[in-house]
Amino acid sequence: LIDERSYRIDALAERLGARLHGDGGVVVTGLAPLADATPLDLSLFVDPRYRRELETTRAGALLVREPVPGLDIPQLQAPDPVLALVTLVDLFHPPSAPAAGVHRLAQVSGSAHLAEDVSVGPFVFVGERVRIGRGTVLHPGVYLGDDVTVGEDGVIWTNAVIREGCRLGDRVLIHPGAVLGADGFGFARREGRFLKIRHVGIVVIEDDVEIGANATIDRGTLGTTTVRRGVKIDNLVHIAHNVEVGEDSAMAAQVGISGSTLVGRRVLMGGQVGMVDHLTIGDDAVLVAQSGVIGNVPPGAMLSGYPARPHREVLKTTAALRGLEKIKKRLRELELELEALKRTRGEP
Amino acid sequence: LIDERSYRIDALAERLGARLHGDGGVVVTGLAPLADATPLDLSLFVDPRYRRELETTRAGALLVREPVPGLDIPQLQAPDPVLALVTLVDLFHPPSAPAAGVHRLAQVSGSAHLAEDVSVGPFVFVGERVRIGRGTVLHPGVYLGDDVTVGEDGVIWTNAVIREGCRLGDRVLIHPGAVLGADGFGFARREGRFLKIRHVGIVVIEDDVEIGANATIDRGTLGTTTVRRGVKIDNLVHIAHNVEVGEDSAMAAQVGISGSTLVGRRVLMGGQVGMVDHLTIGDDAVLVAQSGVIGNVPPGAMLSGYPARPHREVLKTTAALRGLEKIKKRLRELELELEALKRTRGEP
Amino acid sequence: LIDERSYRIDALAERLGARLHGDGGVVVTGLAPLADATPLDLSLFVDPRYRRELETTRAGALLVREPVPGLDIPQLQAPDPVLALVTLVDLFHPPSAPAAGVHRLAQVSGSAHLAEDVSVGPFVFVGERVRIGRGTVLHPGVYLGDDVTVGEDGVIWTNAVIREGCRLGDRVLIHPGAVLGADGFGFARREGRFLKIRHVGIVVIEDDVEIGANATIDRGTLGTTTVRRGVKIDNLVHIAHNVEVGEDSAMAAQVGISGSTLVGRRVLMGGQVGMVDHLTIGDDAVLVAQSGVIGNVPPGAMLSGYPARPHREVLKTTAALRGLEKIKKRLRELELELEALKRTRGEP
Repeated sequence: LIDERSYRIDALAERLGARLHGDGGVVVTGLAPLADATPLDLSLFVDPRYRRELETTRAGALLVREPVPGLDIPQLQAPDPVLALVTLVDLFHPPSAPAAGVHRLAQVSGSAHLAEDVSVGPFVFVGERVRIGRGTVLHPGVYLGDDVTVGEDGVIWTNAVIREGCRLGDRVLIHPGAVLGADGFGFARREGRFLKIRHVGIVVIEDDVEIGANATIDRGTLGTTTVRRGVKIDNLVHIAHNVEVGEDSAMAAQVGISGSTLVGRRVLMGGQVGMVDHLTIGDDAVLVAQSGVIGNVPPGAMLSGYPARPHREVLKTTAALRGLEKIKKRLRELELELEALKRTRGEP
Repeated sequence: LIDERSYRIDALAERLGARLHGDGGVVVTGLAPLADATPLDLSLFVDPRYRRELETTRAGALLVREPVPGLDIPQLQAPDPVLALVTLVDLFHPPSAPAAGVHRLAQVSGSAHLAEDVSVGPFVFVGERVRIGRGTVLHPGVYLGDDVTVGEDGVIWTNAVIREGCRLGDRVLIHPGAVLGADGFGFARREGRFLKIRHVGIVVIEDDVEIGANATIDRGTLGTTTVRRGVKIDNLVHIAHNVEVGEDSAMAAQVGISGSTLVGRRVLMGGQVGMVDHLTIGDDAVLVAQSGVIGNVPPGAMLSGYPARPHREVLKTTAALRGLEKIKKRLRELELELEALKRTRGEP
Repeated sequence: LIDERSYRIDALAERLGARLHGDGGVVVTGLAPLADATPLDLSLFVDPRYRRELETTRAGALLVREPVPGLDIPQLQAPDPVLALVTLVDLFHPPSAPAAGVHRLAQVSGSAHLAEDVSVGPFVFVGERVRIGRGTVLHPGVYLGDDVTVGEDGVIWTNAVIREGCRLGDRVLIHPGAVLGADGFGFARREGRFLKIRHVGIVVIEDDVEIGANATIDRGTLGTTTVRRGVKIDNLVHIAHNVEVGEDSAMAAQVGISGSTLVGRRVLMGGQVGMVDHLTIGDDAVLVAQSGVIGNVPPGAMLSGYPARPHREVLKTTAALRGLEKIKKRLRELELELEALKRTRGEP
């Protein structure tokens, strides 16, 4: 190691347990994509879609799964290059956090209990009886309502809002502008008008959950809206009241989960998926982007389209649809031929 | 009544005008869903989908529409249990609000006029000539631009933004992060580039409207974007410039209404519905979740799919689509048989 | 000109280079849509959809492309009335901005460099080494992370969040609540669990870009997410990590662009369009509202539906779908007739 952010690649190979192909004395000072890399950058090649960029990249070194023959660039071969990348990001961009302590322009209630090293930025509001665990950072403008609890090593980004009573586990990461615990969209309709049902439940976020920018998770009507351990939620996702999302599930941007739906474990949803309320989505189901789900989904199923059907079937009918014009033509021909046949036989 | 949040159920029966079945001396201290209830909780059973949870619930008492026979739990029978629930929520969770007054870390213009008991939290910005009616609460981080007016008993949640000139009626409830009065998305395109049309209209929100977290309602170009009395708007909904939404309509999460569209009264939209601009949606229309509406909608119609068509028809063609493969097979068989027929007759 | 906001229409005609039809002595004091205009308002008539409103409008004068015969209202005929409107908006509603200077309730790092006339509102956070160009306005509650740069004459609205390292060009307009530079949604999945890849790239916004309220643009994994000159992005749009959007493209509300997609120049997307990752969308392509794009799009193509296909084809198959029931009926009739034919010939 030459200095804090400058590494010889033989040293990196050792650090990563990677196999070095080429000159180990090359020094790199940063990470960059193939197209942007300079000779001082280490770059990553694992996705064959980027093969053409290999020909023109100026990267000083490459991280690869299998060595690329005929390349004049030193290569670090790692069995799991993406895992290796996670380590490299920490080496080149050590995580940093604001200093511990409460900023003079924050408003923290006297009854709140913050662990010693919590960082509270300016314009943060911390309500009554809030409890915050060790190592947690509240960036500027965060709002924690009364009785909120946040576990250890959490990061809550700027202008995120956690309303009263909600509970967050350890290592929870909330991106800017996310709103947890707003009222669910539940009304009684009487004589054509809506009567508000005040929502007095809460939101529970378990450990290791990540919630995207401007996402919204509504509080339960009486009970809880629950997001279980390890779930990853992208930007602008909406999760309605009384939903439960099972462990290790993931939802891409702009997904909408309607009220009281039960999402299983390891469920994957593409962007803009939507679903009606009170459904059960089985473990390991895959909902392709933009699916509109209107019924329960068995474990392991892969659905797409509206109304969502097995993805394979959707692709087939889409292809068949293209043949619909031809079907009509063949049908017309058959009708004419049959007509002719009947006429030659003297039938009416 | 034993204490403030502890009620004998015979007392609750009297309060609700409900009929008591079972032991009136049972005491409950909270409300909870069937699955989570303890013997100290009153629970609700009105949705038959939850019948199985009746078998295992530990609830101390039940609120029901019709008494469930064979249950060993006291039941309160109310003709409209959801209405009864609204009352119960107020009994067990009395609504609370921050104290009246302006927080020292708020910024309120000297020319603003706030009724005496208005509550202004920290980090709130109130612009010039703003007027706010009695009983209204501005939670931390709210922004009211110059010349905004807010009626009585409003609740504007954390980090909501109401830009200059917008007007809100009485009992308006705005959830966190909602943005009212940003510029509409209107440009002139000249030689392939966009020329901005500054938007100088406003947003008008009438009485009893509720607007969801991170929803956006753009200001009119010259005139107004109007949301009429009693409309309920869920999270992440987008309403474009110059739209008018009629009384008592409701939109579920992530709906998008394009510019200058006129939505009638009591229109219901499921989640993620979208529509092109300049449409008229008739009174009492129902747009099923994810519908993509590209033409005017007659009053009372129920549409779904893209392009949106009558929902019944969509379900039928979806079923028919599944038969498309079979249609092709039958067609091929017909062609072969006809061929055979012609051959046996010695035709060419 | 009578006073600052009161104009004789002959003076306006001169100012706009428009041709006056009717009484030039009429005075107007504002702009309004046809339906709302009073005799003191100038209104615009260019869209034939509003012809019926001409009959009842009370407008004092009209801006038109072609003079409307038989109208008793003075008309200003401009070859490009929308361009003329842009000028008129500035005349009747001169743009205003908060005073220059840093509000006492803002938090600006000592190492930040702000041009002299920058305006920094209350509750604004400006991080270390931030640079802000002349004439830029930061409205209340804006957050600029460390090392952010903002060019000249920018307007960043309330509660927008620009995270560390992001770079904005000149004349960039960011609407309230938009989030630039949150982590991309990139994870490695190992044994069913997600391992976070920290995102250390940035977002680059070029000159003359406008970004809608509560929109989100994620930072690159290692490199940049880039929005090129003149792009217009509506509310609640999501742009994922490593995307590049070409010059003069526009996206209506709630569009979602998945990771590493390359959007060409002058591409137009309707509301709620979505697309899978790693696509290339050709220059001048048009994606109709709600399209779900799952493959590369050639330049100039117009697509709709899911999976997105040429719009013309989608409309045709939608029409054909309606005939599907009829096709089945005709097929059944053919089968019966053929059966009858065979029977009369004594065949099996």
